[in-house]
Parts: sequence; C-alpha cells; structure tokens
Amino acid sequence: MERRSMCIVTLITDYGTRDYYVGALKGVILGIAPDVKIVDITHDIEPHNVVHGAFVLRQVWPWYPPRTIHVVVVDPGVGSDRRIIVGQYAGRLVVAPDNGIVTFLHHDLPAEGVYSVEDRRFTLPCVSETFHGRDVMAPVVGHLAAGVAMREFGPEVDAPELLDVEYLPRIEANVIHGSILHVDRFGTLVTNIRREQIEAVVGRGRTPEVLVNDVLLGPIHAAFCDVRPGESLAMIGSSGLLEIAVNQGNAVERFGHSGVISVVVR
Amino acid sequence: MERRSMCIVTLITDYGTRDYYVGALKGVILGIAPDVKIVDITHDIEPHNVVHGAFVLRQVWPWYPPRTIHVVVVDPGVGSDRRIIVGQYAGRLVVAPDNGIVTFLHHDLPAEGVYSVEDRRFTLPCVSETFHGRDVMAPVVGHLAAGVAMREFGPEVDAPELLDVEYLPRIEANVIHGSILHVDRFGTLVTNIRREQIEAVVGRGRTPEVLVNDVLLGPIHAAFCDVRPGESLAMIGSSGLLEIAVNQGNAVERFGHSGVISVVVR
Amino acid sequence: MERRSMCIVTLITDYGTRDYYVGALKGVILGIAPDVKIVDITHDIEPHNVVHGAFVLRQVWPWYPPRTIHVVVVDPGVGSDRRIIVGQYAGRLVVAPDNGIVTFLHHDLPAEGVYSVEDRRFTLPCVSETFHGRDVMAPVVGHLAAGVAMREFGPEVDAPELLDVEYLPRIEANVIHGSILHVDRFGTLVTNIRREQIEAVVGRGRTPEVLVNDVLLGPIHAAFCDVRPGESLAMIGSSGLLEIAVNQGNAVERFGHSGVISVVVR
Repeated sequence: MERRSMCIVTLITDYGTRDYYVGALKGVILGIAPDVKIVDITHDIEPHNVVHGAFVLRQVWPWYPPRTIHVVVVDPGVGSDRRIIVGQYAGRLVVAPDNGIVTFLHHDLPAEGVYSVEDRRFTLPCVSETFHGRDVMAPVVGHLAAGVAMREFGPEVDAPELLDVEYLPRIEANVIHGSILHVDRFGTLVTNIRREQIEAVVGRGRTPEVLVNDVLLGPIHAAFCDVRPGESLAMIGSSGLLEIAVNQGNAVERFGHSGVISVVVR
Repeated sequence: MERRSMCIVTLITDYGTRDYYVGALKGVILGIAPDVKIVDITHDIEPHNVVHGAFVLRQVWPWYPPRTIHVVVVDPGVGSDRRIIVGQYAGRLVVAPDNGIVTFLHHDLPAEGVYSVEDRRFTLPCVSETFHGRDVMAPVVGHLAAGVAMREFGPEVDAPELLDVEYLPRIEANVIHGSILHVDRFGTLVTNIRREQIEAVVGRGRTPEVLVNDVLLGPIHAAFCDVRPGESLAMIGSSGLLEIAVNQGNAVERFGHSGVISVVVR
Repeated sequence: MERRSMCIVTLITDYGTRDYYVGALKGVILGIAPDVKIVDITHDIEPHNVVHGAFVLRQVWPWYPPRTIHVVVVDPGVGSDRRIIVGQYAGRLVVAPDNGIVTFLHHDLPAEGVYSVEDRRFTLPCVSETFHGRDVMAPVVGHLAAGVAMREFGPEVDAPELLDVEYLPRIEANVIHGSILHVDRFGTLVTNIRREQIEAVVGRGRTPEVLVNDVLLGPIHAAFCDVRPGESLAMIGSSGLLEIAVNQGNAVERFGHSGVISVVVR
C-alpha cells in the first residue's frame, strides 16, 4: 500500500484539552511521519464513553478522502489484554483499541481487513501500561503513513469486538421503536432511526408522527425554522438520522438523555 | 483569482468540540483542496451568538496574510432562506451565512465584493436542511482555495445583512457613552470604545476617567501590573478597545455582562 | 541555525478557545513563516497557572523531533518588565515569558543557550501592553522558523527564572514524601515522585506502599485494570511519575487537589 506524502491523520480522543496527552500523541506521529497533516476532530469524547467515540467516528467517515487514517483513542481498558487494531473500511483506515469503537462502522460498511497490532517493531521501545495512544497507536499511525501495510503489524482478526448497543431500531408494522444514540453540543437528541427506515414504513400520502416516551411531539419537519424559537420538533438531521431538537434551544434539557423515540404512521 | 497551493483556511464556528460537525467540515474542505492549511480559530462561539462570531472575525482579520479564507459558521437561521455569502475585504476572503456575521468587518473596511452562493455546482450534491457548514460552506471554501473566483458562485450582493448592534459609542462633548461588546475567557470586559475616540476627546493634559454604570472606576492604565492583583482597572486592550479588567482576576464576576461604560474628561 | 521549510511549532497557552487570541497568534506566525506546521497542544492551561504550563511543556518535550519550536504563553506578568526568552534544551526550542515556565525543563535537561528577546526588529512594530503572545512571541517564532539564530534576538541570559515549587520529593531512609504536581482531565493526581526514586528506595523483594495524607492507599499497581472499576489505586503513570487514580473514576473528587503523598517501604 503506497501512500502519498501528505497523508491525512485525524484524531478522535477523550484526552481533553488541558493535559499533555494530545501533544505527546501528535509529537510521536510527527516524529515518524513529519509530512502528515494532522486534523483534530475532537478530544472531548466523554471520558471512557466508547459509544460516543464510535458515533463520531461513524459520522465523519464518509467525508474524508480515501487513505485517510483515523485514530480513535477512547480506551477504558488500557493496560488490559484488549488488542489494538488497524482496520480498513471503504478505503479509509482506523487505528483504535479493539473495544467496540468500530461497531457502527463495521455494521454499515464492509470490512476490507482488520489486523491486530502485535509486532513490537512498530511501537515505541518502551510501552507504558496507561498510555497506549502515545506508545502504540501513534507510532502505528506514523508507520502506516510512512507506507507500512496493515498486514505487517500482526495477524488478521476474524472480527473486531462489537458493542452490545441498540444500533438498529425495532420496526413493527406501522411503528418504529428507536432510542437515543447521541446528544450534541446544541442539546439535540440524535436517534438511531434512519431516514430510509421511515420512508420504508410510510406509505404514500401518509404522515408519520413522532412520540417521545409515548407523548406526541408532532410531525417530522424539514428544518429548525419550521417551528418558532423555543419550540421542539422532530426532523431528519444532517447525519440522515431522526433528531429531536428545540429551535434555538436545548432538547436534552427538555426531554432528558434517554427514552423511547417512536415513529408512528396512522 | 489565482491561489498558491498552500492556502490558509481558518475556522470560526459554534459547533463546539464534542461532535462530528467540525470533523465533517474539515473533511469536505480537504477532499476538494487537499493542500490547504486549516487553522482552528475557535469552535466555542456561544451557540447561535452572531455578535460573538462577528467580534472574533473582526479581531483576527488583520493578522492573517492576504488570500486567507475565513469560514464563519454561526448559523441560527440554517434551513431558512438566508443566503450564504463570499466576501472580500482588504484582500482576505470570508465565507459565512448572510446573517450579520460580517457586520464589524463591513463597518471598518471597504468591501471588495460580496457574492451570494447560488451555483449548485459548488455545493455538495445533497444539501441538508441543517448542516450548511458541511454541505455548502465547506465545498465553497474548497473551490475558492482551488482557484474558483468569487463571482463564479453567484450574483453580487449590494450589501450583506448587518446587525443592529451598538458598535459605535455615543460621544457628547466631554463624555463617551459605550457598551460591552465581548467578555473574554479571563472575564475581561471588552467595550466598543476605541483608543482614537478617547484620544480625540481628551485635550492635552487632561486625564480621562472611566465609570461603570456611573460608578467611578478610575483612570486608564497602561497594563494589568499597574494595579495590585485583585484590583480592577480600565485599560486599552490589545484590540485597541477600552477594556475593564481585574489584575489576575475576573471582571465579569465583579461587574456583570452588560452595563454602560463611560469615559469622562473633567 | 538552518531550518527545514516544514518546521513544527507547538502552542501551549492559557488563552482558552472562545476568544480571538489563539487566532491572532497563529496568523502572525503564518504571516512570517507560512510553511510552518502549527500544532495545538493546549489552550486550556488554567488561567495564569505557570506551574500547569511548566508541567505540560516538560511532558511533551521528549516526544517532538529536534528543531521543534514550543511556544508557551501563560503570562500573568504581561506588561511588567519580565523578559521574553528563547531557550534551547536537547535540540528543541522554547519561546516563553521568563516567569518560571521552563522550570521543570531546566531542572531535567542541560540548557543549550537561553537568550533574552530585546531586538525590536523581531517584534511587531507596535507592541501592546497586554498581548505579548501576538506582538512579541509570535513574530519571534516566525523569525526563528525562518532561520534567525537565537543569539540574534538579544543577549544571553545566565539562567531563566525558576519557580519555587517542590519539584523533587524529600527522601528519608525508607520513606519518600511527595506532593501533587498536576491533576489531569480524568481526575488523576500526578505526583512529583519518580519511578527511579521508588526503585532506589525499594530493596529487592520489599514492597512499597502508598499513603495519601497518612492514610494507606495500597501497593503500586501496574495498570488501572488491576483494580475494579470505582476502586482507587497508585500506579506509575505514563510520565514516569507516581499517580493516584480511580479506575474509570475520578481521584481528585475523592482525595482533593493537594496533600502529602508518601511511599513507604516497610
């Protein structure tokens, strides 16, 4: 696998932005592959929240060019015997702990190879028990960017670990029962109900209605500005998923972090 | 308009840093113009606060080299019929929703052309109702960086939308009546009163005094260290605007977010 | 001192991420040296907390390649007569206020030259009293990256200012008395007790125990996962320093920000 010199490496971590962790990670990558273009996606994944990391990874995936390397460090099991993996999906690469981070990616796209990182030639000489982002993942990324093929890092893995998360909604005749996957910075609730699933349930001319915990919210709108500021609405968000939002307001404060979201076609 | 290959693109958004929004925006830009240098200015504009975004945009403007492209995404009206504009001021470009974001820029510098983005060849094929940063502004930036001229994107605009904000203080004989434009991370209050306005009012040998809500604060100091830690002071800040600060402390906790700031020459 | 064109410049500041300060700093650097690669380490140093900045600087130092320029702006004395310095340690450069920021670096590595920035050819023409990051440090970094030698900026300094901080623990026979240097985003307490100091005190076969404020915490573990989620533990962290942590939890909430940390060999 040849790489062009200006390889893109994106970072998704729960390291936060007040410590030296992000800085050390970047330094190790640049020490091995000085020409990569490092792109911060987020360092504010909720600490140890693998679902949050998995969601962000899945959402940014289609928007980066082939050969991009995404590094995801949300690693509550650091120091245990969980593996570090390198995987390829749709021509882009991911380097991450094998703890379910790739769940949504793996569900939606065919894997083009997932390998376990075992060859110590590609880690730092001294691997700490608590900072595999710096000591394993960063040098692996550096070597990948410098042209080392995935299979060089270790044996192929049958399947990565997957989270036991309700990623797909349950569909019963004229009702879709979904749940909340993510709450964004604006307080918008992103559900696991997809546009295509709604379209499949809705017959021509029939209008779907959305319920939050069995309370009617209303129809599915096209945009925030279809309702007045402060009013809540359901809409298909930019990720193609049903969202519950408040125009210029905060839906999580109104509805909470969890609950059953239903789409009913009457 | 020719561009050099290593074009600078800066980002000012209210997307925050825990979601996929910034990551998707960057990916779309890099997919079209892989050689641009993306510079994060801030993603922590207060959600939907157009004045905050307009202030930061104005303040960074003079410090970037010509041909820099500044993208500002603070877009409470996304999905409405508000336009996306590309504008040029002093040789630098801005891509933003036409919602007043360029107000302070437009006030202080001559516009060298403002165009409405309407040609769908330069957006993503599928434009969502809620994420024009990714679907419209990012591809426009990519194409601008790749050498497309502003006028290619759509018709010229007579004037961009401007905010109804008290950008200029009211000057009456020996008094300047101003207000607070911005509160910075240190809690310093940045007013709309400019150094030159104070100099114009002050005669030779006369000393201006600063009042906060009609209570005397004191003279205008040269630097924080002119007062003791914990003491408040007025000074001309790095933006050339009068600021109310507390040495090694927090002025907004002491004086609040709003109020009348006066400079009196007795 | 020749520099390659793609020089790495890292930023460690307490500017936060909601103002224009970081943006202006980056713009000035890129205006002078457009080809540098700017790397954000953190802008969330606690405001005016020089120890926090000094700790992060020390921790990232070994991970960046030679000729990297680290800029550290934590500057409570801006506008006073404190100097701006350029220093070299182990082939990397630092540009910072002379207020103790380099304390831990200076303690651990031999200085290869520290110079006071005095030549106004290398600052902006107009230097404000409150923003030396933009007006002095940024242009100095630009000129350093463009190939200007350290000695060009001003006279050599005998020694930089050093903080009066308990950087080294006190060792008495079979006890090491340490303190907390840093609290990280996960709430982990990083102490000033080093792995080698523990190894020197511990004889073969004897097991060290850790006390927090004279209360026994337990032995030193190898990794978080040696204890159950929610349990606290002592371990050697990724920086080679003794840390007090809670597996998937928060140690500072349990133990507070300060206190005496002891390692006892019985």
